[in-house]
Amino acid sequence: MEKLKEKILTEGSAIGTEIVKVDCFLNHQMDVKFLEEVGEEFGKRFEGVKVDKILTVEASGIAIACLAAPYFGYVPVVFAKKAAPSTMNEGFLEAEAKSFTKGTVSKLKVAEKFISEGENILILDDFLASGEASIALTEIVEKGGARVAGIGSVIEKGYQGGSDRLRQKGYRVESLTVIDKIEDGIITFR
Amino acid sequence: MEKLKEKILTEGSAIGTEIVKVDCFLNHQMDVKFLEEVGEEFGKRFEGVKVDKILTVEASGIAIACLAAPYFGYVPVVFAKKAAPSTMNEGFLEAEAKSFTKGTVSKLKVAEKFISEGENILILDDFLASGEASIALTEIVEKGGARVAGIGSVIEKGYQGGSDRLRQKGYRVESLTVIDKIEDGIITFR
Repeated sequence: MEKLKEKILTEGSAIGTEIVKVDCFLNHQMDVKFLEEVGEEFGKRFEGVKVDKILTVEASGIAIACLAAPYFGYVPVVFAKKAAPSTMNEGFLEAEAKSFTKGTVSKLKVAEKFISEGENILILDDFLASGEASIALTEIVEKGGARVAGIGSVIEKGYQGGSDRLRQKGYRVESLTVIDKIEDGIITFR
Repeated sequence: MEKLKEKILTEGSAIGTEIVKVDCFLNHQMDVKFLEEVGEEFGKRFEGVKVDKILTVEASGIAIACLAAPYFGYVPVVFAKKAAPSTMNEGFLEAEAKSFTKGTVSKLKVAEKFISEGENILILDDFLASGEASIALTEIVEKGGARVAGIGSVIEKGYQGGSDRLRQKGYRVESLTVIDKIEDGIITFR
């Protein structure tokens, strides 16, 4: 997605050799008009794929998933929680995920009533790095007896191997842009 | 908003005398088509009010704010974070808020570059209970030299006094629905 690359280069920045900072439009401040285009692009990438529900993880995945929903016939969007609120008083499905940027391990939780047997669930998120969060979401989907329809990420850090891990497990992965390398503040796309 | 009341009554449920559970359409699973209508309703409620930016707090506020943005001319949406990621390496504004449903105190954080002097900032969130989160957001706005254009909530728990506290401080508050009482599983609207 050319416009996404442009936005990363003009509005984003690189930190060290691992982190790309896009808090101006993607994961702290959000450019909703642009995220609608991101949603539309996911719609095109997964055209013809049966999607009954979109699953993401709080917090920054929520905007991506909600703005993609119109391009998937307004299917329900569910986000996995990193902590269970006191209102989560029924059964839930959970799986562990490490956060690369926070250095923490989260137990992602989804109320089991929101994953139904046989459903086709599309996983969307802002970043795909080592694939930890996506793998946790696939585990939740499958524990609930549903099927992963595909995995979409806005920005893939190609050098962290997440998409390879996911493809080896048999999942279809669509990243709207893949970063191959960050060196001396220069971001190189695949 | 009549449709919102209907959805609360048909899809939501009451827990004890304090908590209304709306995880089917608002804060765990999200009905995006309906949340677009919620966004449009906020647009009507704040018609004629100058809004340069929308501020909310992770996680469930994000969907509300993003789906309201089109009705405010696609102004930028910023969400306050409850924990600072390692990419948040610049100055930020912060304020404390208690979470009623999680029983925790969070330090809400917004990168200071996203609050500019003189901006008119609309605060939107899913719930307004005691007003703790909203008050923290007003503090962040004002620490950044900006102005609170108004405060909008989808569901106000009228019995927890948050809107009174906010109005006493001089803020305009718009709640799309106000719950007056929960008793024996029955939700009574104002």
